[in-house]
Amino acid sequence: MTAPESTLASPSWAQTDDTHDPALRSWVESANDPKTDFPIQNLPFGAFWHDDRGCGIGVAIGDQVVDMLILRDAGVFDDLGDAAVGIFTDNLYPFILEGSSARRALRRRMSELLREGNKELAENAELRKQAVCAQSDVRMVLPTMIGDYTDFYASIHHATNVGTMFRPDNPLLPNYKHIPVGYHGRASSVVISGTPIVRPCGQTKADDADAPTFGPCKLLDYEMEVGAFIGEPNAMGRSVSIADAEEHLFGLVLVNDWSARDMQKWEYVPLGPFLAKNFATTISPWVVTMEALAPFRVPTFERDAGDPKPLPHLFNSDNESHGGIDITVEVWIQSQQMKAQNIEPVRLSRGSFANMYWTLSQMLTHHTSGGCNMEPSDLIASGTVSGPTKDSRGSMLELSWRGTEPIDLPTGEQRRFLADGDEVIMRGYCEREGFRRIGFGECRGVIMPAST
Amino acid sequence: MTAPESTLASPSWAQTDDTHDPALRSWVESANDPKTDFPIQNLPFGAFWHDDRGCGIGVAIGDQVVDMLILRDAGVFDDLGDAAVGIFTDNLYPFILEGSSARRALRRRMSELLREGNKELAENAELRKQAVCAQSDVRMVLPTMIGDYTDFYASIHHATNVGTMFRPDNPLLPNYKHIPVGYHGRASSVVISGTPIVRPCGQTKADDADAPTFGPCKLLDYEMEVGAFIGEPNAMGRSVSIADAEEHLFGLVLVNDWSARDMQKWEYVPLGPFLAKNFATTISPWVVTMEALAPFRVPTFERDAGDPKPLPHLFNSDNESHGGIDITVEVWIQSQQMKAQNIEPVRLSRGSFANMYWTLSQMLTHHTSGGCNMEPSDLIASGTVSGPTKDSRGSMLELSWRGTEPIDLPTGEQRRFLADGDEVIMRGYCEREGFRRIGFGECRGVIMPAST
Repeated sequence: MTAPESTLASPSWAQTDDTHDPALRSWVESANDPKTDFPIQNLPFGAFWHDDRGCGIGVAIGDQVVDMLILRDAGVFDDLGDAAVGIFTDNLYPFILEGSSARRALRRRMSELLREGNKELAENAELRKQAVCAQSDVRMVLPTMIGDYTDFYASIHHATNVGTMFRPDNPLLPNYKHIPVGYHGRASSVVISGTPIVRPCGQTKADDADAPTFGPCKLLDYEMEVGAFIGEPNAMGRSVSIADAEEHLFGLVLVNDWSARDMQKWEYVPLGPFLAKNFATTISPWVVTMEALAPFRVPTFERDAGDPKPLPHLFNSDNESHGGIDITVEVWIQSQQMKAQNIEPVRLSRGSFANMYWTLSQMLTHHTSGGCNMEPSDLIASGTVSGPTKDSRGSMLELSWRGTEPIDLPTGEQRRFLADGDEVIMRGYCEREGFRRIGFGECRGVIMPAST
Repeated sequence: MTAPESTLASPSWAQTDDTHDPALRSWVESANDPKTDFPIQNLPFGAFWHDDRGCGIGVAIGDQVVDMLILRDAGVFDDLGDAAVGIFTDNLYPFILEGSSARRALRRRMSELLREGNKELAENAELRKQAVCAQSDVRMVLPTMIGDYTDFYASIHHATNVGTMFRPDNPLLPNYKHIPVGYHGRASSVVISGTPIVRPCGQTKADDADAPTFGPCKLLDYEMEVGAFIGEPNAMGRSVSIADAEEHLFGLVLVNDWSARDMQKWEYVPLGPFLAKNFATTISPWVVTMEALAPFRVPTFERDAGDPKPLPHLFNSDNESHGGIDITVEVWIQSQQMKAQNIEPVRLSRGSFANMYWTLSQMLTHHTSGGCNMEPSDLIASGTVSGPTKDSRGSMLELSWRGTEPIDLPTGEQRRFLADGDEVIMRGYCEREGFRRIGFGECRGVIMPAST
């Protein structure tokens, strides 16, 4: 174990153990590549479709996927008892229902099973052939059934940027530093990475027009976010304390909160964004568990000296010292012309989830503080992850400063907002001295023309 | 048939047939009481729990409930073919999936079966004993699994009242007459009538305070709304036209959109209501089908001469002539003191759903116009049903004009907002010369003290 001493006094959810040991190697050779998102220290869960075998739920290891249902049927999890009973269907929902101890037990078992030297699966040729295949041979699907989806607004840099553009006199509203502002999103239109995104139509009104018109969105944008799946539920009328909040988180994905800025501007008063957001939200397929992220916990955002201390129900020392997660998030773009000319995607931004004003625990605690019941598999997203610098802005609205500073692409094209044929590619990963890189894979979507 | 001539040229979804004939009587005697909400002309669907038999789905007739699953197992629906295949579980979801033709076929079959003179069930003592019981012997549960819940804001009277209180300079925002303003609500906390409502806690900030505080909501309110369950879905990226929208509606319920006004005021900018609404939403248990409501279709709201005509995708002649529904909605209250003194509930308001600026078809068309996919069993609520007169205001905020005009109760108590122990009772019904009264039953909830 090489975990630096600083983590030893950390809360249990930030503690590392031998599953994080960077010296651990897997008999799946691609997992030992230092650049992989999925070393044996990660072991994220996902759901997939295999043309021969149908639906499955699996764990990513290097460039391979391990089919959990086949392992269970082969008795590999028999010693886990009830921990494996959730593994019986085509998505993670029943497994998430089993709770955090089941997740931890399965993670530990998979870590043993996939270690270099372990022969149970590695040297059982028949089982290995059935249960292990290349990720390129499966099509990932939504990891679970999302009941409710909530979107927050937790980056003060994003809120300030957007506020400055839309309300120059009043960029940051008075509630911002007191509550993690959030709103309910649309669960039915959450789709898996790779799903084409049809440009939405909607009402917009030009500033100088007398009346609105209906037609394809002209200011289509992405938002780079991090999403958390809820594990343990809370009963209606009962809040989750800030001390307990981490125990209610299952794991994280990348989220692209596609946004129609012109529609949003016209519709959003007084009840918030609606059609500007609900046409599609894309998530990455592999759910990276809270356990895999333990080594990357960092102090919460450093508030300015004049900022208010959060009210007691949103404050505790563990959250102050370890509530943040240092996930590097990147947005890349490849236009249709770039594809035609075989030009690789170019990076638009790189920021860190550690820059959020509010932590996931604070978001969840706030969400339940009035008694709202969170159900297993509900999704909460962070809001756009923007940092203090221009190159860390997590939306094109901010990068092009509402279109006034267009972005140059290698083809000579310019972008103020997204064009048809553009593919947006989000990536996320954690890196820290003394630990293996833990990645999220990709969250992709290509813009299709509006269907008018 | 006594349908007035005016409906003969109506769109198919507003056409009456012999199931609406006011002369029809049922062998269930209580259904022939002129005051019942559930005559044989209604036949709403719901889900229930029976202590001996467990879960069931049923149809209300007078003061009785008919268990559909038992009828199906007895072969009563054999002639319907596929129309009855959705009747196999403990809620309406699979039945709603079967689509509108299945709903219509089952309605027609139930109308025959329950008519005076029909002996199939009436004179089969054994089956009747199994399948028919008093509503007082079952406990109603949520009729279906709600995927997404959306709340609109479709009463211009409500929007103007609230706007005048909160933004006196700018009561009605510029988008109001162009789009049915709506926002996403919380599906997990939609509960069935009778569920106690715990007073939420939350952050609020007094106008003269430097900082917010956290504690029990002081300005707890109800909102009297009408909700529609979606039947036929639409694919993501494909909108529903105004001409087709009615075909996507399954049926209606009453909705109490409980609201924490003090929390709402502090949190709602810029992303809309969140904790102020998501602690609970109550619905009435019986889903009144669009077919049962056919005789009560009325022209859409009469816009002022200067009001804009809706954009083409939100406008058609059928919607103009029959898009409204004349449902009378009433709110009653009974305080704990009133209960202790055996004083019956008193009525706070009576309004009509015909007074909404936007129709349900316009709400659904708008909702899907950007490509958002609606799924079977999704719930859309209308927003507070307020009319032009004071006694038709559908929230206590409006009735007490933000607490400045308190409401007198028969005990001598006054109400500016809801007190612990208050029970709010909503009722809805349709009445028209030449037709039987069609009712919704009740939507009830009693306020429990905050759990601090």
